Amino acid sequence: MIAIFTDFGVRGPYLGQMKAVLHDQAPGVPVVDLFPDLPPFDVQSAAYLLPAYSQTLSDQAVCLCVVDPGVGTERRALAVHADRRWYIGPDNGLLSIVARRAEHVRVHEVTWRPETLSASFHGRDLFAPVAARVARGDALSGWTAESAVVAEPDWPEDLAAIAYIDCYGNAISGLRAAAVPRHSVVEVAGCRCRHQRVFGEAPPGTPFWYGNSNGLVEIAVAGGSVAARLGLGVGTPLLVGDRSSPADS
Amino acid sequence: MIAIFTDFGVRGPYLGQMKAVLHDQAPGVPVVDLFPDLPPFDVQSAAYLLPAYSQTLSDQAVCLCVVDPGVGTERRALAVHADRRWYIGPDNGLLSIVARRAEHVRVHEVTWRPETLSASFHGRDLFAPVAARVARGDALSGWTAESAVVAEPDWPEDLAAIAYIDCYGNAISGLRAAAVPRHSVVEVAGCRCRHQRVFGEAPPGTPFWYGNSNGLVEIAVAGGSVAARLGLGVGTPLLVGDRSSPADS
Amino acid sequence: MIAIFTDFGVRGPYLGQMKAVLHDQAPGVPVVDLFPDLPPFDVQSAAYLLPAYSQTLSDQAVCLCVVDPGVGTERRALAVHADRRWYIGPDNGLLSIVARRAEHVRVHEVTWRPETLSASFHGRDLFAPVAARVARGDALSGWTAESAVVAEPDWPEDLAAIAYIDCYGNAISGLRAAAVPRHSVVEVAGCRCRHQRVFGEAPPGTPFWYGNSNGLVEIAVAGGSVAARLGLGVGTPLLVGDRSSPADS
Repeated sequence: MIAIFTDFGVRGPYLGQMKAVLHDQAPGVPVVDLFPDLPPFDVQSAAYLLPAYSQTLSDQAVCLCVVDPGVGTERRALAVHADRRWYIGPDNGLLSIVARRAEHVRVHEVTWRPETLSASFHGRDLFAPVAARVARGDALSGWTAESAVVAEPDWPEDLAAIAYIDCYGNAISGLRAAAVPRHSVVEVAGCRCRHQRVFGEAPPGTPFWYGNSNGLVEIAVAGGSVAARLGLGVGTPLLVGDRSSPADS
Repeated sequence: MIAIFTDFGVRGPYLGQMKAVLHDQAPGVPVVDLFPDLPPFDVQSAAYLLPAYSQTLSDQAVCLCVVDPGVGTERRALAVHADRRWYIGPDNGLLSIVARRAEHVRVHEVTWRPETLSASFHGRDLFAPVAARVARGDALSGWTAESAVVAEPDWPEDLAAIAYIDCYGNAISGLRAAAVPRHSVVEVAGCRCRHQRVFGEAPPGTPFWYGNSNGLVEIAVAGGSVAARLGLGVGTPLLVGDRSSPADS
Repeated sequence: MIAIFTDFGVRGPYLGQMKAVLHDQAPGVPVVDLFPDLPPFDVQSAAYLLPAYSQTLSDQAVCLCVVDPGVGTERRALAVHADRRWYIGPDNGLLSIVARRAEHVRVHEVTWRPETLSASFHGRDLFAPVAARVARGDALSGWTAESAVVAEPDWPEDLAAIAYIDCYGNAISGLRAAAVPRHSVVEVAGCRCRHQRVFGEAPPGTPFWYGNSNGLVEIAVAGGSVAARLGLGVGTPLLVGDRSSPADS
């Protein structure tokens, strides 16, 4: 399976052209829009969402990752094998968190270039053909160089900020829920949110946090948009505190 | 074929994760987003749209139906065979209209649960695996219990209200057009709409109603958005009257 | 491969129903949303985008083209073979530019009609079955009539206007970049834009034009929405001038 992880958005001619290449060059391999509308140009938010949203994919799935504001300028193209999955994308930090957290990582720099490479659409012209080739199970010798490393920006262990607002207005952070005790208070935009297990158990109208189905801290309100309610956007910081802290009184 | 009918919306990571499960667990079965952006949390509107928008599917198609505001709280999971198609979803009323209208119905309660069941994403963890299993043609014994009934909310025969606004601004109701004589006037938001056969024959700028290609009464205006024009939204009621009634004068 | 090129938009039940027909009637043929949200009802913009966005498809790909404001009124259905690809759609001008520019064109009028043809959804009922049949490689005799011509509206060689605003706010025109020298100034909404090769080399905040990855002149600004910035919309005209012209001083 090839899973697309990009900021192209669901509209327009970008996803479709990339999928046409994938179907042509990896016939019979299912192609899925895993996360097609990441925050535009926001490599950091995408980097923290990638391990969470690719972890439910089956072994040997190939993630085609394209958040690439620097397209057309100089940066390497990578094929990273992290634990049991492949990640194809630019070496701009996008793959750094998935690589950092994996137990077993092999990094391949893609040295192959297509005959025709547009200046602005490497997703279609470079990364999709590479993903197709990896998904077909082609040997990597001859067109990749092993033992490269992934560019590691100076980014924290977790991202204590909103990384995506979903279509219900729920605000997904880059913070792993496993690291946040359930009795913690998560403060966002001046609102102190307590933990709830599920939407159905949350008091109507009261923003809460919960560990979402991909293991991230998510801010929500039952039956409404917490983003509209609290004015949250991508980048809004989260503060994790203790329920008994003075600020709670 | 597996046809997805949900309020997840086309954005974000929800549809994609569900499709990844379907491709993994029912390899080779085509997966289609039949209606991916039903009104959020609105089980009733979805219930009336379901028979209309699944009727064009081929025999033995499997509809994966997820409009599930109560996810994580107690309700049954169903696999309903209604006439020649399968419907998989929560027993919250979503499948009640399709079951009520079918000539032949078999209801199976799904007793199987996955090893890992998130609290908030049963579409991916429970309903998609069930849809995959039914689409593969697995026998139902051992993991479903037959002869259950579908929960029937106290809902009318047809829904005389707007159930969906499409991307052109057309307003689709939950009212079957076959039950509305063509000489009827349909009143919505204070506007008395007459019948037109097609957009191309409607006087420009005058809202009209027609029987849409899925057999529902739809309010429209040629070349524009009737929803913006009349201020229509999901839930706006329709009133079907007679052209010669006093209110028309 | 069948590539869908339409103004249906990514929301709602239209794309999905069309794809269900394609998978049923052309089993095993990949289906791709090539350009699913063309400007609504705007046949001319779509006609100029079609050759640019279908040129990257492989040989014998079938483009299912549905921008059809006159659906339900009288117009022919066509299957056009232009150079190495098929184009299926209404004879309302939508296929005229791709036919005009092709070296080798064969035009077939589709005389077949389905048993059930809704008045408002020929994409699903007529054009999708035709696309499936052509994609399966069926002979064309018996249900099409050869040697028809494509309706040619009185449209210019290129369309010097914005034809689509993408999700980043970039403004794609109907003007082929190969015809515009790089030293040209492109004036749009009162702003005189110079050429840049890639986003990464453009001065931040300054609108520019470039030849996009499908060969069209596109107006953009690095890291932002040029459409919002300059108030551009579909139909906004472009004026191509010379950098040394008096208006530049």
